[in-house]
Amino acid sequence: MSKKGDETKKMITQAATELFALKGFKDVSMSDICEKTGLSRGGLYRHYSSTSEIFSQIISNETSFDERIKNKESALLILNENLNILEGEIQNSAGSLSLAIYEYANMDENSKEFAKLLSGAKKRWADLIEYGIKTKEFNKVDPDATAEMLLYYYQGIRMWSRVMDIGKKPAQNYRKIIVDYLTKGK
Amino acid sequence: MSKKGDETKKMITQAATELFALKGFKDVSMSDICEKTGLSRGGLYRHYSSTSEIFSQIISNETSFDERIKNKESALLILNENLNILEGEIQNSAGSLSLAIYEYANMDENSKEFAKLLSGAKKRWADLIEYGIKTKEFNKVDPDATAEMLLYYYQGIRMWSRVMDIGKKPAQNYRKIIVDYLTKGK
Repeated sequence: MSKKGDETKKMITQAATELFALKGFKDVSMSDICEKTGLSRGGLYRHYSSTSEIFSQIISNETSFDERIKNKESALLILNENLNILEGEIQNSAGSLSLAIYEYANMDENSKEFAKLLSGAKKRWADLIEYGIKTKEFNKVDPDATAEMLLYYYQGIRMWSRVMDIGKKPAQNYRKIIVDYLTKGK
Repeated sequence: MSKKGDETKKMITQAATELFALKGFKDVSMSDICEKTGLSRGGLYRHYSSTSEIFSQIISNETSFDERIKNKESALLILNENLNILEGEIQNSAGSLSLAIYEYANMDENSKEFAKLLSGAKKRWADLIEYGIKTKEFNKVDPDATAEMLLYYYQGIRMWSRVMDIGKKPAQNYRKIIVDYLTKGK
């Protein structure tokens, strides 16, 4: 796709992210996205055929750690940078996609693709943890179980932060527990 | 209340729990509960004035660890028994109240009471962890942060177990991570 096409797609996903964060998944239509972006129906459908396609693109947009691991960067550095991102996301409860993700995953036609996304995210974190164990930066934990903890714990906080004002503490504790678990005694 | 009244209340909360697990909070009415229990409208309203009151009773129905701590029982034993209960709940995804809890907490009029419940649950676990640190059964972790992890991690699993079949592994990993974090090196 042309550079201009890429920019349009980026603009669409950004506008759609705001809508999904505000209204969840089910209540956002392609017309809403047209209105928000100023695109015509044809202009939007040239890039995406459904809100599912846009949403799937948004939530799968995670960079892999592979390259950084290949470059032998510090596992602890990669961990900390990514915990920063998660901490920022937790504190920005208005921008949370958790309700939208929940609604999306709850629709039968999406559940398979969502399972694939979740297991991709799990593998990504498990790979980083395994790498950190190899470099001796991390304790000898179970990489899969720890990656799962990291994801479910995050999701639990995100859910509650939508329901009520939980303050900043849970995001700080999140980082604390994970760093503690992976590195205590190191 | 008379013994018969207590039994009726128990019968009502049991029937209502099944309905909430099946349909969430919002879609269950007092009439549904009448139908399920066979009680007349008057018979039900004698005990509870709203579905909120019934639901609040169900989710606050947690036994405290205080007495067991006072009796100097092993912190690890108390932990393990309660992780057994949570593990059983996680595996019984059909009986999960997580969607109902989410809907209930999301309603403005309930959010304060729900915050109180959550902080009660947190304190309960933090007290147990603090006790286990004192008896030297647990590592010197941050009791509040660890209690939070335990609750949010649990909630994250419960949410996803409603959305898709996550198998038995996450419940087993949950126990593994928590016991590992609290006791590794002991």
